[in-house]
Amino acid sequence: MHRTKVRIVEEALDANNTIAQANRADFDRARVRVVNFMSAPGAGKTSLLELVVADLPGARVGVLEGDVQGSMDADRLASLHVPVTQLNTGAGFGGECHLDANMVRSALSELPLEDIDLLVIENVGNLVCPAEFRVGEDARIMVSAVTEGEEKPLKYPLMFRACELVLINKIDLLPHLDFDLDRFLYNLDAVHPGVERLLVSARTGEGIEEWRDWLTQVAALPDAGAAPAGAAARPAEARV
Amino acid sequence: MHRTKVRIVEEALDANNTIAQANRADFDRARVRVVNFMSAPGAGKTSLLELVVADLPGARVGVLEGDVQGSMDADRLASLHVPVTQLNTGAGFGGECHLDANMVRSALSELPLEDIDLLVIENVGNLVCPAEFRVGEDARIMVSAVTEGEEKPLKYPLMFRACELVLINKIDLLPHLDFDLDRFLYNLDAVHPGVERLLVSARTGEGIEEWRDWLTQVAALPDAGAAPAGAAARPAEARV
Repeated sequence: MHRTKVRIVEEALDANNTIAQANRADFDRARVRVVNFMSAPGAGKTSLLELVVADLPGARVGVLEGDVQGSMDADRLASLHVPVTQLNTGAGFGGECHLDANMVRSALSELPLEDIDLLVIENVGNLVCPAEFRVGEDARIMVSAVTEGEEKPLKYPLMFRACELVLINKIDLLPHLDFDLDRFLYNLDAVHPGVERLLVSARTGEGIEEWRDWLTQVAALPDAGAAPAGAAARPAEARV
Repeated sequence: MHRTKVRIVEEALDANNTIAQANRADFDRARVRVVNFMSAPGAGKTSLLELVVADLPGARVGVLEGDVQGSMDADRLASLHVPVTQLNTGAGFGGECHLDANMVRSALSELPLEDIDLLVIENVGNLVCPAEFRVGEDARIMVSAVTEGEEKPLKYPLMFRACELVLINKIDLLPHLDFDLDRFLYNLDAVHPGVERLLVSARTGEGIEEWRDWLTQVAALPDAGAAPAGAAARPAEARV
Protein backbone atom coordinates (compact mmCIF):
# COMPACT_ATOMS: atom_id res chain seq x y z
CA MET A 1 0.00 0.00 0.00
CA HIS A 2 1.25 3.39 -0.95
CA ARG A 3 1.42 5.84 1.94
CA THR A 4 1.32 9.50 1.12
CA LYS A 5 4.05 11.37 2.88
CA VAL A 6 2.64 14.40 4.60
CA ARG A 7 4.97 17.25 5.35
CA ILE A 8 4.02 19.11 8.45
CA VAL A 9 4.77 22.80 8.67
CA GLU A 10 5.41 23.07 12.38
CA GLU A 11 4.63 26.72 12.77
CA ALA A 12 2.37 28.42 10.31
CA LEU A 13 3.73 31.92 10.60
CA ASP A 14 1.31 34.74 10.84
CA ALA A 15 2.02 38.09 9.27
CA ASN A 16 3.53 39.48 12.45
CA ASN A 17 6.08 36.69 12.74
CA THR A 18 6.99 37.04 9.08
CA ILE A 19 7.75 40.71 9.57
CA ALA A 20 9.53 40.03 12.87
CA GLN A 21 11.85 37.66 11.03
CA ALA A 22 12.56 40.33 8.43
CA ASN A 23 13.40 42.76 11.23
CA ARG A 24 15.61 40.16 12.80
CA ALA A 25 17.50 39.61 9.56
CA ASP A 26 18.11 43.35 9.26
CA PHE A 27 19.30 43.59 12.87
CA ASP A 28 21.62 40.61 12.33
CA ARG A 29 23.09 42.13 9.18
CA ALA A 30 23.81 45.31 11.13
CA ARG A 31 25.22 43.21 14.01
CA VAL A 32 22.80 44.81 16.42
CA ARG A 33 21.34 42.81 19.30
CA VAL A 34 17.78 43.69 20.28
CA VAL A 35 15.90 43.57 23.56
CA ASN A 36 12.12 43.86 23.89
CA PHE A 37 11.56 45.56 27.26
CA MET A 38 8.08 45.25 28.74
CA SER A 39 6.07 45.91 31.91
CA ALA A 40 2.84 47.31 33.29
CA PRO A 41 2.57 51.12 33.32
CA GLY A 42 4.74 52.65 35.99
CA ALA A 43 6.81 49.56 36.84
CA GLY A 44 10.01 51.50 36.20
CA LYS A 45 11.25 50.57 32.71
CA THR A 46 12.60 54.02 31.87
CA SER A 47 14.22 54.49 35.27
CA LEU A 48 15.98 51.15 34.94
CA LEU A 49 17.22 52.09 31.47
CA GLU A 50 18.45 55.50 32.63
CA LEU A 51 20.80 53.73 35.03
CA VAL A 52 22.58 51.58 32.44
CA VAL A 53 22.19 52.67 28.81
CA ALA A 54 24.81 55.43 28.86
CA ASP A 55 27.66 53.26 30.11
CA LEU A 56 27.21 49.66 29.07
CA PRO A 57 30.74 48.17 28.95
CA GLY A 58 31.87 47.70 25.38
CA ALA A 59 28.48 48.36 23.80
CA ARG A 60 26.80 51.38 22.34
CA VAL A 61 23.08 51.39 23.15
CA GLY A 62 20.17 52.89 21.24
CA VAL A 63 16.56 53.03 22.37
CA LEU A 64 13.30 52.71 20.45
CA GLU A 65 10.68 54.22 22.69
CA GLY A 66 7.09 53.00 22.31
CA ASP A 67 4.29 55.11 23.74
CA VAL A 68 0.67 55.78 22.96
CA GLN A 69 1.56 59.44 22.70
CA GLY A 70 4.16 61.94 23.81
CA SER A 71 7.91 61.58 24.15
CA MET A 72 8.54 62.06 27.86
CA ASP A 73 10.50 58.85 28.32
CA ALA A 74 12.43 59.42 25.09
CA ASP A 75 13.38 62.89 26.30
CA ARG A 76 14.62 61.47 29.60
CA LEU A 77 16.84 58.97 27.82
CA ALA A 78 18.01 61.38 25.11
CA SER A 79 19.33 63.66 27.84
CA LEU A 80 21.87 60.91 28.55
CA HIS A 81 23.24 61.37 25.00
CA VAL A 82 21.92 58.01 23.89
CA PRO A 83 20.28 57.84 20.44
CA VAL A 84 16.54 57.56 20.99
CA THR A 85 13.80 57.10 18.42
CA GLN A 86 10.19 57.73 19.42
CA LEU A 87 7.45 55.47 18.07
CA ASN A 88 3.93 56.59 18.92
CA THR A 89 1.00 54.18 18.61
CA GLY A 90 -1.76 56.73 19.12
CA ALA A 91 -2.83 57.10 15.50
CA GLY A 92 -6.04 55.17 16.11
CA PHE A 93 -8.90 56.20 18.38
CA GLY A 94 -7.28 55.50 21.68
CA GLY A 95 -3.98 54.18 20.44
CA GLU A 96 -2.46 50.74 20.18
CA CYS A 97 -1.61 49.11 23.50
CA HIS A 98 1.54 47.36 22.24
CA LEU A 99 4.24 47.42 19.61
CA ASP A 100 4.13 44.86 16.82
CA ALA A 101 6.71 43.84 14.25
CA ASN A 102 5.32 46.12 11.56
CA MET A 103 5.45 49.20 13.79
CA VAL A 104 9.07 48.44 14.59
CA ARG A 105 9.76 47.87 10.89
CA SER A 106 8.28 51.26 10.06
CA ALA A 107 10.82 52.81 12.43
CA LEU A 108 13.83 50.92 11.03
CA SER A 109 14.93 53.70 8.72
CA GLU A 110 15.02 56.06 11.69
CA LEU A 111 17.24 53.81 13.77
CA PRO A 112 21.01 54.49 13.70
CA LEU A 113 21.84 50.79 13.43
CA GLU A 114 25.38 51.45 12.21
CA ASP A 115 26.16 53.40 15.38
CA ILE A 116 24.87 51.00 18.01
CA ASP A 117 25.49 47.47 19.25
CA LEU A 118 22.33 47.00 21.28
CA LEU A 119 18.83 48.29 20.62
CA VAL A 120 16.45 48.38 23.57
CA ILE A 121 12.82 48.57 22.49
CA GLU A 122 10.80 50.00 25.37
CA ASN A 123 7.32 48.68 24.73
CA VAL A 124 4.00 50.29 25.68
CA GLY A 125 3.16 49.74 29.35
CA ASN A 126 0.84 46.71 29.32
CA LEU A 127 1.02 43.16 30.67
CA VAL A 128 -1.15 41.52 28.00
CA CYS A 129 -0.68 42.28 24.30
CA PRO A 130 3.04 43.17 24.12
CA ALA A 131 3.80 39.54 25.00
CA GLU A 132 1.79 38.37 21.98
CA PHE A 133 3.82 40.18 19.34
CA ARG A 134 7.45 39.41 18.59
CA VAL A 135 9.25 42.28 16.92
CA GLY A 136 12.54 40.64 15.93
CA GLU A 137 14.24 40.69 19.32
CA ASP A 138 17.06 38.53 20.73
CA ALA A 139 15.72 38.63 24.26
CA ARG A 140 12.61 39.69 26.12
CA ILE A 141 12.85 41.30 29.52
CA MET A 142 10.01 42.35 31.76
CA VAL A 143 9.80 44.46 34.87
CA SER A 144 7.40 43.56 37.66
CA ALA A 145 7.24 46.04 40.52
CA VAL A 146 6.61 44.65 43.98
CA THR A 147 3.91 47.32 44.41
CA GLU A 148 1.81 45.43 41.84
CA GLY A 149 1.24 42.44 44.12
CA GLU A 150 2.49 38.88 44.28
CA GLU A 151 -0.25 37.27 42.17
CA LYS A 152 0.68 38.99 38.89
CA PRO A 153 2.46 35.97 37.33
CA LEU A 154 -0.75 33.96 37.73
CA LYS A 155 -2.92 36.72 36.27
CA TYR A 156 -0.69 37.54 33.28
CA PRO A 157 1.07 34.21 32.65
CA LEU A 158 1.92 34.75 28.98
CA MET A 159 3.99 37.84 29.78
CA PHE A 160 5.95 36.14 32.55
CA ARG A 161 6.36 33.03 30.42
CA ALA A 162 7.58 34.91 27.35
CA CYS A 163 10.57 36.52 29.07
CA GLU A 164 14.15 35.44 29.54
CA LEU A 165 14.61 37.81 32.48
CA VAL A 166 12.26 39.22 35.10
CA LEU A 167 13.41 42.35 36.90
CA ILE A 168 11.65 42.57 40.25
CA ASN A 169 11.76 46.31 40.85
CA LYS A 170 11.04 48.74 43.71
CA ILE A 171 12.35 46.33 46.35
CA ASP A 172 13.24 49.38 48.49
CA LEU A 173 9.49 49.57 49.22
CA LEU A 174 9.22 46.02 50.59
CA PRO A 175 9.26 47.12 54.25
CA HIS A 176 6.21 49.29 53.56
CA LEU A 177 4.13 46.77 51.62
CA ASP A 178 2.04 43.69 52.37
CA PHE A 179 4.01 41.88 49.67
CA ASP A 180 5.16 38.31 50.20
CA LEU A 181 8.30 37.96 48.06
CA ASP A 182 8.45 34.19 48.57
CA ARG A 183 4.88 33.91 47.35
CA PHE A 184 5.70 36.01 44.28
CA LEU A 185 8.70 33.81 43.45
CA TYR A 186 6.58 30.71 43.97
CA ASN A 187 3.98 32.09 41.55
CA LEU A 188 6.70 33.06 39.08
CA ASP A 189 8.13 29.54 39.09
CA ALA A 190 4.64 28.15 38.69
CA VAL A 191 4.25 29.85 35.31
CA HIS A 192 7.91 29.96 34.20
CA PRO A 193 10.01 27.53 36.22
CA GLY A 194 13.53 28.72 36.85
CA VAL A 195 13.34 31.86 34.74
CA GLU A 196 16.15 34.23 35.60
CA ARG A 197 15.17 37.00 37.97
CA LEU A 198 16.96 39.94 39.53
CA LEU A 199 15.84 41.88 42.59
CA VAL A 200 16.45 45.55 41.82
CA SER A 201 15.68 49.05 42.97
CA ALA A 202 16.08 51.90 40.52
CA ARG A 203 15.85 54.20 43.53
CA THR A 204 18.60 52.78 45.74
CA GLY A 205 20.70 51.15 43.03
CA GLU A 206 20.40 47.68 44.52
CA GLY A 207 20.85 44.99 41.87
CA ILE A 208 21.69 47.49 39.12
CA GLU A 209 25.19 46.07 38.56
CA GLU A 210 23.68 42.66 37.90
CA TRP A 211 21.12 44.25 35.56
CA ARG A 212 23.92 46.01 33.66
CA ASP A 213 25.85 42.73 33.44
CA TRP A 214 22.86 40.88 32.00
CA LEU A 215 22.30 43.53 29.33
CA THR A 216 26.02 43.55 28.54
CA GLN A 217 25.88 39.80 27.91
CA VAL A 218 23.02 40.25 25.46
CA ALA A 219 24.93 43.00 23.65
CA ALA A 220 27.92 40.66 23.35
CA LEU A 221 26.00 37.78 21.80
CA PRO A 222 28.29 36.63 18.99
CA ASP A 223 25.65 35.98 16.35
CA ALA A 224 22.07 34.98 15.76
CA GLY A 225 21.16 31.81 17.58
CA ALA A 226 23.50 32.24 20.51
CA ALA A 227 22.12 32.93 23.94
CA PRO A 228 23.61 35.10 26.69
CA ALA A 229 25.56 33.10 29.25
CA GLY A 230 22.90 33.76 31.81
CA ALA A 231 20.13 32.51 29.55
CA ALA A 232 21.56 29.14 28.61
CA ALA A 233 18.31 27.37 29.29
CA ARG A 234 16.38 29.67 26.99
CA PRO A 235 14.24 27.53 24.71
CA ALA A 236 14.84 27.81 20.99
CA GLU A 237 11.27 28.87 20.35
CA ALA A 238 11.84 31.96 22.46
CA ARG A 239 13.76 33.34 19.52
CA VAL A 240 12.02 34.76 16.48
CA MET B 1 -32.00 77.55 -5.94
CA HIS B 2 -33.02 74.35 -4.32
CA ARG B 3 -30.81 73.32 -1.44
CA THR B 4 -30.72 69.72 -0.51
CA LYS B 5 -31.16 69.28 3.21
CA VAL B 6 -28.50 67.00 4.55
CA ARG B 7 -29.20 65.21 7.79
CA ILE B 8 -26.09 64.61 9.78
CA VAL B 9 -25.89 61.54 11.95
CA GLU B 10 -23.72 62.94 14.70
CA GLU B 11 -22.30 59.70 15.93
CA ALA B 12 -22.09 56.78 13.59
CA LEU B 13 -22.29 54.00 16.13
CA ASP B 14 -19.91 51.18 15.77
CA ALA B 15 -20.89 47.67 16.71
CA ASN B 16 -19.49 48.00 20.22
CA ASN B 17 -21.59 51.07 20.98
CA THR B 18 -24.70 49.42 19.59
CA ILE B 19 -24.24 46.47 21.92
CA ALA B 20 -23.33 48.75 24.82
CA GLN B 21 -26.65 50.52 24.36
CA ALA B 22 -28.47 47.19 24.40
CA ASN B 23 -26.69 46.31 27.63
CA ARG B 24 -27.62 49.68 29.04
CA ALA B 25 -31.28 49.18 28.19
CA ASP B 26 -31.26 45.81 29.95
CA PHE B 27 -29.56 47.28 33.02
CA ASP B 28 -32.08 50.13 33.08
CA ARG B 29 -35.02 47.74 32.86
CA ALA B 30 -33.61 45.82 35.82
CA ARG B 31 -33.00 49.13 37.64
CA VAL B 32 -29.36 48.26 38.05
CA ARG B 33 -26.70 50.96 37.93
CA VAL B 34 -23.37 49.96 36.44
CA VAL B 35 -19.80 51.08 37.05
CA ASN B 36 -16.85 50.30 34.75
CA PHE B 37 -13.83 50.06 37.07
CA MET B 38 -10.42 50.33 35.44
CA SER B 39 -6.71 50.68 36.19
CA ALA B 40 -3.25 49.42 35.37
CA PRO B 41 -2.36 45.98 36.76
CA GLY B 42 -1.78 46.09 40.50
CA ALA B 43 -3.19 49.56 41.16
CA GLY B 44 -5.55 48.16 43.78
CA LYS B 45 -8.98 47.75 42.18
CA THR B 46 -9.89 44.57 44.01
CA SER B 47 -8.60 45.81 47.36
CA LEU B 48 -10.65 48.99 47.01
CA LEU B 49 -13.74 46.94 46.17
CA GLU B 50 -13.20 44.58 49.11
CA LEU B 51 -13.52 47.56 51.45
CA VAL B 52 -16.93 48.73 50.24
CA VAL B 53 -18.97 46.22 48.25
CA ALA B 54 -20.29 44.21 51.19
CA ASP B 55 -21.84 47.16 53.01
CA LEU B 56 -22.87 49.88 50.61
CA PRO B 57 -25.68 51.79 52.36
CA GLY B 58 -29.03 50.96 50.82
CA ALA B 59 -27.62 49.11 47.84
CA ARG B 60 -26.89 45.50 47.03
CA VAL B 61 -23.74 45.16 44.97
CA GLY B 62 -22.74 42.54 42.44
CA VAL B 63 -19.40 42.24 40.66
CA LEU B 64 -18.50 41.17 37.14
CA GLU B 65 -14.85 40.28 37.28
CA GLY B 66 -12.82 40.58 34.09
CA ASP B 67 -9.48 38.79 33.87
CA VAL B 68 -7.35 37.23 31.16
CA GLN B 69 -7.52 34.01 33.12
CA GLY B 70 -8.11 32.67 36.60
CA SER B 71 -10.59 33.81 39.25
CA MET B 72 -8.39 35.01 42.10
CA ASP B 73 -10.01 38.42 42.41
CA ALA B 74 -13.49 36.91 42.05
CA ASP B 75 -12.71 34.47 44.86
CA ARG B 76 -11.55 37.30 47.11
CA LEU B 77 -14.79 39.22 46.54
CA ALA B 78 -17.05 36.16 46.73
CA SER B 79 -15.68 35.45 50.20
CA LEU B 80 -17.47 38.68 51.24
CA HIS B 81 -20.79 37.04 50.26
CA VAL B 82 -21.23 39.35 47.29
CA PRO B 83 -22.49 37.80 44.05
CA VAL B 84 -19.54 37.62 41.67
CA THR B 85 -19.47 36.49 38.06
CA GLN B 86 -16.13 35.70 36.41
CA LEU B 87 -15.55 36.70 32.80
CA ASN B 88 -12.28 35.43 31.33
CA THR B 89 -10.88 36.95 28.14
CA GLY B 90 -8.13 34.40 27.58
CA ALA B 91 -9.81 32.40 24.84
CA GLY B 92 -7.47 33.80 22.20
CA PHE B 93 -3.72 33.28 22.01
CA GLY B 94 -2.70 35.59 24.80
CA GLY B 95 -6.11 36.82 25.81
CA GLU B 96 -7.96 40.06 25.30
CA CYS B 97 -6.56 43.03 27.20
CA HIS B 98 -9.94 44.63 27.89
CA LEU B 99 -13.65 43.98 28.21
CA ASP B 100 -15.95 45.09 25.43
CA ALA B 101 -19.72 45.40 25.26
CA ASN B 102 -20.19 42.02 23.62
CA MET B 103 -18.20 40.20 26.29
CA VAL B 104 -20.32 41.85 28.98
CA ARG B 105 -23.45 40.97 27.00
CA SER B 106 -22.37 37.33 26.87
CA ALA B 107 -22.27 37.36 30.68
CA LEU B 108 -25.69 39.01 31.13
CA SER B 109 -27.57 35.76 31.65
CA GLU B 110 -25.15 34.87 34.47
CA LEU B 111 -25.68 38.13 36.31
CA PRO B 112 -28.25 38.17 39.16
CA LEU B 113 -29.67 41.52 38.05
CA GLU B 114 -32.88 41.06 40.04
CA ASP B 115 -30.90 40.74 43.27
CA ILE B 116 -28.60 43.74 42.96
CA ASP B 117 -28.81 47.51 42.68
CA LEU B 118 -25.27 48.21 41.54
CA LEU B 119 -23.05 46.16 39.25
CA VAL B 120 -19.32 46.86 39.41
CA ILE B 121 -17.48 45.63 36.33
CA GLU B 122 -13.83 45.17 37.24
CA ASN B 123 -12.06 45.49 33.91
CA VAL B 124 -8.78 43.85 32.84
CA GLY B 125 -5.78 45.70 34.25
CA ASN B 126 -4.69 47.98 31.38
CA LEU B 127 -4.52 51.76 30.86
CA VAL B 128 -5.11 51.74 27.10
CA CYS B 129 -7.85 49.62 25.53
CA PRO B 130 -10.44 49.41 28.34
CA ALA B 131 -11.02 53.16 27.91
CA GLU B 132 -11.89 52.61 24.24
CA PHE B 133 -14.82 50.25 24.81
CA ARG B 134 -18.02 51.27 26.54
CA VAL B 135 -19.92 48.35 27.98
CA GLY B 136 -23.22 49.99 28.99
CA GLU B 137 -22.06 51.63 32.20
CA ASP B 138 -23.45 54.63 34.10
CA ALA B 139 -20.06 55.76 35.32
CA ARG B 140 -16.41 55.02 34.73
CA ILE B 141 -13.94 55.03 37.58
CA MET B 142 -10.22 54.50 37.38
CA VAL B 143 -7.55 53.86 39.97
CA SER B 144 -4.10 55.39 39.60
CA ALA B 145 -1.58 54.30 42.22
CA VAL B 146 1.00 56.87 43.27
CA THR B 147 3.66 54.17 42.77
CA GLU B 148 3.03 54.45 39.01
CA GLY B 149 4.46 57.94 38.75
CA GLU B 150 3.08 61.42 38.24
CA GLU B 151 3.27 61.51 34.43
CA LYS B 152 0.66 58.80 33.83
CA PRO B 153 -2.21 61.18 32.88
CA LEU B 154 -0.03 62.55 30.08
CA LYS B 155 0.98 59.11 28.84
CA TYR B 156 -2.50 57.54 28.94
CA PRO B 157 -4.77 60.57 28.42
CA LEU B 158 -7.79 58.74 27.02
CA MET B 159 -8.14 56.66 30.18
CA PHE B 160 -7.93 59.67 32.50
CA ARG B 161 -10.24 61.66 30.24
CA ALA B 162 -12.87 58.93 30.03
CA CYS B 163 -13.50 58.72 33.78
CA GLU B 164 -15.87 60.49 36.08
CA LEU B 165 -13.76 59.68 39.13
CA VAL B 166 -10.06 59.06 39.64
CA LEU B 167 -9.06 57.21 42.80
CA ILE B 168 -5.47 58.08 43.67
CA ASN B 169 -4.48 55.00 45.64
CA LYS B 170 -1.58 53.88 47.86
CA ILE B 171 -1.09 57.35 49.34
CA ASP B 172 0.29 55.65 52.46
CA LEU B 173 3.46 55.12 50.40
CA LEU B 174 3.95 58.82 49.57
CA PRO B 175 6.66 59.33 52.25
CA HIS B 176 8.70 56.58 50.62
CA LEU B 177 8.39 57.68 46.97
CA ASP B 178 9.82 60.36 44.71
CA PHE B 179 6.26 61.22 43.72
CA ASP B 180 5.17 64.84 43.38
CA LEU B 181 1.43 64.82 44.12
CA ASP B 182 1.01 68.42 42.98
CA ARG B 183 2.63 67.55 39.67
CA PHE B 184 0.31 64.55 39.26
CA LEU B 185 -2.76 66.71 39.94
CA TYR B 186 -1.47 69.33 37.51
CA ASN B 187 -1.06 66.62 34.84
CA LEU B 188 -4.50 65.23 35.65
CA ASP B 189 -6.12 68.64 35.22
CA ALA B 190 -4.20 69.12 31.99
CA VAL B 191 -5.94 66.12 30.38
CA HIS B 192 -9.26 66.21 32.31
CA PRO B 193 -9.78 69.59 33.97
CA GLY B 194 -11.62 69.41 37.27
CA VAL B 195 -12.36 65.68 37.16
CA GLU B 196 -13.32 64.41 40.58
CA ARG B 197 -10.49 62.74 42.43
CA LEU B 198 -10.17 61.07 45.82
CA LEU B 199 -6.94 60.38 47.68
CA VAL B 200 -7.24 56.90 49.14
CA SER B 201 -5.29 54.10 50.74
CA ALA B 202 -6.74 50.63 50.71
CA ARG B 203 -4.10 49.76 53.29
CA THR B 204 -4.77 52.43 55.93
CA GLY B 205 -8.41 53.14 55.09
CA GLU B 206 -7.79 56.80 54.34
CA GLY B 207 -10.41 58.20 51.97
CA ILE B 208 -12.44 54.99 51.94
CA GLU B 209 -15.54 56.64 53.42
CA GLU B 210 -15.55 59.16 50.58
CA TRP B 211 -15.07 56.33 48.08
CA ARG B 212 -18.03 54.46 49.60
CA ASP B 213 -20.13 57.64 49.45
CA TRP B 214 -19.36 58.16 45.77
CA LEU B 215 -20.33 54.62 44.88
CA THR B 216 -23.48 54.93 46.98
CA GLN B 217 -24.47 57.99 44.97
CA VAL B 218 -24.08 56.08 41.71
CA ALA B 219 -26.17 53.22 43.09
CA ALA B 220 -28.90 55.72 44.01
CA LEU B 221 -29.15 57.31 40.55
CA PRO B 222 -32.90 57.60 39.98
CA ASP B 223 -32.98 56.61 36.33
CA ALA B 224 -31.07 56.60 33.09
CA GLY B 225 -29.81 60.05 32.19
CA ALA B 226 -29.35 61.31 35.72
CA ALA B 227 -25.87 61.87 37.06
CA PRO B 228 -24.57 61.30 40.57
CA ALA B 229 -24.50 64.48 42.65
CA GLY B 230 -20.76 64.48 42.53
CA ALA B 231 -20.66 64.20 38.77
CA ALA B 232 -22.92 67.09 37.84
CA ALA B 233 -20.49 68.35 35.24
CA ARG B 234 -20.30 65.00 33.52
CA PRO B 235 -20.75 65.60 29.80
CA ALA B 236 -23.64 63.88 28.06
CA GLU B 237 -21.30 62.04 25.73
CA ALA B 238 -19.76 60.31 28.71
CA ARG B 239 -22.86 58.17 28.87
CA VAL B 240 -23.47 55.33 26.48
